[in-house]
Amino acid sequence: MPITANNPKRMSWLDVPQDSDFPIQNIPFGVFITKEDVIAIGTRIGDYAIDLGALQQLNYFKGIELTDDMFMQDTLNDFISDGKKTWRLVRNRIATIFDSNNSELRDNKEHRAIVICKMEDVEMQLPVQIGDYTDFYSSKEHATNVGMLFRDPEHALLPNWLHIPVGYHGRSSTIVPSGIPIHRPMGQTLPNGEESPVFGPSRSIDFELEMAFITTDANVMGENIPVYEAEDYIFGMVLLNDWSARDIQKWEYIPLGPFLSKNFATSISPWIVTMDALEPFRTKGPKQDPNPLPYLQQKGRHAFDINLEVAIEPENGEPTVVSNSNYKYMYWSMSQQLAHHTSNGCRVNSGDMMGSGTISGPTPNSFGSMLELTWAGKKPITLNDGTERKFINDGDTVIIKGFCKTNGVRLGFGEVSSKLLPPFVRK
Amino acid sequence: MPITANNPKRMSWLDVPQDSDFPIQNIPFGVFITKEDVIAIGTRIGDYAIDLGALQQLNYFKGIELTDDMFMQDTLNDFISDGKKTWRLVRNRIATIFDSNNSELRDNKEHRAIVICKMEDVEMQLPVQIGDYTDFYSSKEHATNVGMLFRDPEHALLPNWLHIPVGYHGRSSTIVPSGIPIHRPMGQTLPNGEESPVFGPSRSIDFELEMAFITTDANVMGENIPVYEAEDYIFGMVLLNDWSARDIQKWEYIPLGPFLSKNFATSISPWIVTMDALEPFRTKGPKQDPNPLPYLQQKGRHAFDINLEVAIEPENGEPTVVSNSNYKYMYWSMSQQLAHHTSNGCRVNSGDMMGSGTISGPTPNSFGSMLELTWAGKKPITLNDGTERKFINDGDTVIIKGFCKTNGVRLGFGEVSSKLLPPFVRK
Repeated sequence: MPITANNPKRMSWLDVPQDSDFPIQNIPFGVFITKEDVIAIGTRIGDYAIDLGALQQLNYFKGIELTDDMFMQDTLNDFISDGKKTWRLVRNRIATIFDSNNSELRDNKEHRAIVICKMEDVEMQLPVQIGDYTDFYSSKEHATNVGMLFRDPEHALLPNWLHIPVGYHGRSSTIVPSGIPIHRPMGQTLPNGEESPVFGPSRSIDFELEMAFITTDANVMGENIPVYEAEDYIFGMVLLNDWSARDIQKWEYIPLGPFLSKNFATSISPWIVTMDALEPFRTKGPKQDPNPLPYLQQKGRHAFDINLEVAIEPENGEPTVVSNSNYKYMYWSMSQQLAHHTSNGCRVNSGDMMGSGTISGPTPNSFGSMLELTWAGKKPITLNDGTERKFINDGDTVIIKGFCKTNGVRLGFGEVSSKLLPPFVRK
Repeated sequence: MPITANNPKRMSWLDVPQDSDFPIQNIPFGVFITKEDVIAIGTRIGDYAIDLGALQQLNYFKGIELTDDMFMQDTLNDFISDGKKTWRLVRNRIATIFDSNNSELRDNKEHRAIVICKMEDVEMQLPVQIGDYTDFYSSKEHATNVGMLFRDPEHALLPNWLHIPVGYHGRSSTIVPSGIPIHRPMGQTLPNGEESPVFGPSRSIDFELEMAFITTDANVMGENIPVYEAEDYIFGMVLLNDWSARDIQKWEYIPLGPFLSKNFATSISPWIVTMDALEPFRTKGPKQDPNPLPYLQQKGRHAFDINLEVAIEPENGEPTVVSNSNYKYMYWSMSQQLAHHTSNGCRVNSGDMMGSGTISGPTPNSFGSMLELTWAGKKPITLNDGTERKFINDGDTVIIKGFCKTNGVRLGFGEVSSKLLPPFVRK
């Protein structure tokens, strides 16, 4: 079935500002609360949020097999469960409904009032209930930088790294959408040169520039997903900030991996951009050498050209861009990550989320964390207001943006923006 | 409010076989499917499963504030959300209803037929929807054994171990109740002496003898749970088998911890034994030296005297007990684990599960994994049928049991029993 929603020539009768991340070629999926305090599953065109439940009730999805309450829910999990064919049918139909040549909804004032909200009037929610969250570690540049900083500069990459898309389990309960502020965590750390640990506010809060993909039900327990089928089980992507407390991480992570240094907060952008929408931005990934084992081998183009940017905005100040990276630098593809994750029969459900790991590029200005950008504090970053940062200060907002552009079409992810507050005070 | 359900002298009008894990002093909570294919929340006395939804509809919980559908659900999450006071009221009431001196239900044949099922007629389910699963590593004997086997025998315990209840995130999607067979996972491993990894069935499948506790909603994001309050947020405990593939683990776990070596399956016993029921079995834990940091310090008795046993039953054979351990050996208490887990503000929800880590005792016959029992294969175990085991064979069933006994009362957890099948074959 063709992805007619991707037609680069299509215009919408809804106004789309120039360089908007949400032209009619995007049609992402999300969940929001309206000003009437009703929760809605929707999409976005320009600066408008569109209520898909209302569209369905008004019969605009006629002919597409959908349960009556498909879009009358708090999350997208059931819609994602319906599979790729349904996602494509619905997205193609939405493109048709909002096509500038289609008068059906355009000229129905009553329906428009029910279906369309201004973005400024809605509050974005988490788009899915995330059953399990996995975070990979798939940027070679990031893994090399971390290895040089913390372990042996001569053997920065660990022996398994070029053979395995290394990953670990994260915490679902503290994943929050863009806009929710987070608190500087308390934690146990071993100060440099000390023999005994101390407990107090973390002194080195970092961001990690990541993206994540959301899966559908992929398998029964025991069954693997072959690498060549894996993309069929990926619904779409979001931007992700994997908040990290470096001092807590350093003391806790051997031998079982990061735990409290990561699980205090993970922020994601609220609109899931579908893999269908990203199709035109497919590109070739880095050459893999050595050749991976057969269960991870794939042909063709499985990377995506997504421009990424991180900015820090101090309290009452202007944002300073501190990193420009690209998702195409990832060494391991999403298909390889999902094939590896299920190679042991691990069950993957609708709404599960898998993070890329920090996306660092080859140049110092493309590194995806303060740890790397400041080279562990040795080269502080100067913001536009003249202040310096080794890590993130209380009151700073970290803003990650991402967009794709090719053949005259530009679409993007919006942003994940979250402010760091001082430690929580219990009432 | 007194825990009247714990009255050691109470007898039930339901028959309870001698040495049953489920006398009227237990009253655990679970979820089962009846022979009419209806899902029910229930408790167990002797060899009877009791439908709490039916009891509520028949007005046996009169006077206890409960939503009408509290027990008409697929999981215990909402009941657990209601908090400790409700758990205690309901459990005390159940004890009263089944007290041998109470004729109300005993003499109502019609009600009895609706409320009581034979255990052989029901199929146990997962008792809760587990949002997040954490596994700790809190047995000093186990951590020391692993350190001696894999790292430096002279410095077996890592520097952070005596200061932190070390833990990591596990996978919720592959947690299954007792009785569900699991498949030997495929995976990537580096054979001894080789330079390149291979992919194939794991050659070293192990069990890990663990227990786990289930929490209620404990905090908002950012907020910590002080160690002295932590027990109020723990609903109860189950037995847990943390299936492990040692060869996969060895190759993948540095630097982010175990991943595919663990997430193919985790088996739990289906009845949650409440902390109220375990109250009489409270005991003193091991002395902690050095003294933990203040946020982990606690007074009083926070360990529990729970006898644990692991048996291996070969295909068509009889079980051989291979380990006898006790939960009281745990160095870090559940309260310390929960206080540490939330010390950074990590949100804990109703139905979250936290595993103890392998529970090894001080003597070789009390070790909680094949890795330790056979000392990494150097001392194979001989089963009663004369066959030897270094790890678990296809066709073997691993059975973990646990019970407490004091002052004439004995109660237990039943068992978690699961069979290892050969690798999954995709249809």
